[in-house]
Amino acid sequence: MFFERLVLATGNRGKYREFAAMLPGDLVGELVFAPELTRLVVEETGESYVENALLKARAWARASGLPSLADDSGLEVAALDGAPGVHSARAVPGDDSARNAWLLSELEGREDRTARFVAALALVIPGRREFVCEGECPGHIAGAPSGSGGFGYDPLFIPDGFEASFADIPAEVKNVVSHRAAALRTMIGILGRELKE
Amino acid sequence: MFFERLVLATGNRGKYREFAAMLPGDLVGELVFAPELTRLVVEETGESYVENALLKARAWARASGLPSLADDSGLEVAALDGAPGVHSARAVPGDDSARNAWLLSELEGREDRTARFVAALALVIPGRREFVCEGECPGHIAGAPSGSGGFGYDPLFIPDGFEASFADIPAEVKNVVSHRAAALRTMIGILGRELKE
Repeated sequence: MFFERLVLATGNRGKYREFAAMLPGDLVGELVFAPELTRLVVEETGESYVENALLKARAWARASGLPSLADDSGLEVAALDGAPGVHSARAVPGDDSARNAWLLSELEGREDRTARFVAALALVIPGRREFVCEGECPGHIAGAPSGSGGFGYDPLFIPDGFEASFADIPAEVKNVVSHRAAALRTMIGILGRELKE
Repeated sequence: MFFERLVLATGNRGKYREFAAMLPGDLVGELVFAPELTRLVVEETGESYVENALLKARAWARASGLPSLADDSGLEVAALDGAPGVHSARAVPGDDSARNAWLLSELEGREDRTARFVAALALVIPGRREFVCEGECPGHIAGAPSGSGGFGYDPLFIPDGFEASFADIPAEVKNVVSHRAAALRTMIGILGRELKE
């Protein structure tokens, strides 16, 4: 089981960096950052993380003929009934800091700051198989953003067991405790069970 | 948080290979195989995995002046009241295949073949701190050994969710689902919480 070239079906550099660090070298030779391959815009019209991940992985597998791995992830805040959820990256116009400011204002005066990050992964091997799985990381929303690592809502998310945000803790630690790390472990387990070679 | 050189306090090449593959490159520069550093025999006289791991990590940290990571692990078989457990590597005279034959004969005619692998890790940073943690992997004992990977009882151990033994599944999969992988994730989480830099 070895992918000589695997496309990471995302335009997000932060996600690319994380997967490049997390994927075992004996599982993937070259991890290709999708935008460096060709131009392709995928509408994320799915109702779930899994659907969106599949949309992206399928589109890139079709366009490239290569095995493609896509992530779709979101932040689910208990006091907001699971919002922003699947729409996390598009919850608010503007950039990450606009979204972080929006989240803080939504939670103003709320007691319950419980939240979790969820990630779905889809792996599409052209003409062969599709695999999907999910992973999560429980935590809570801080009172103010902190840290310069990560991306998205990371500066506001304190994973359980830590006192620092995902943007504060070293990348090599985030890459072990994160929702994407959990999902990737599940995916590698699935591949071990399903792919014989 | 970065260890330029970290000693892996073991004489077991199989363990060294696994940790070398599992440790993130941005966490450890060079992983030193202890026997290549100096000659040192550590009596594993502890009553628990954690004690034995600490004995080894402390001895190598003292001898080398370098941060040292040790693993102590064992197989716990339900029908044998948790044996061979802490004494797994020394349960029976002889080599791995002698121990595998012993285990099969002990389980002959038994219905319950449930088992788990347990690993304790100790990290000793000279003059600074000690950290310990554990991880486990549930599974069961096969009817016959299978596979050529791994070491120890791996050819007889089928991890939950798989139909192949630890010696059958690819190393990059074992290194994600194993007791050592689980312990290492916990250890990296602890380091992320405890070590500020």
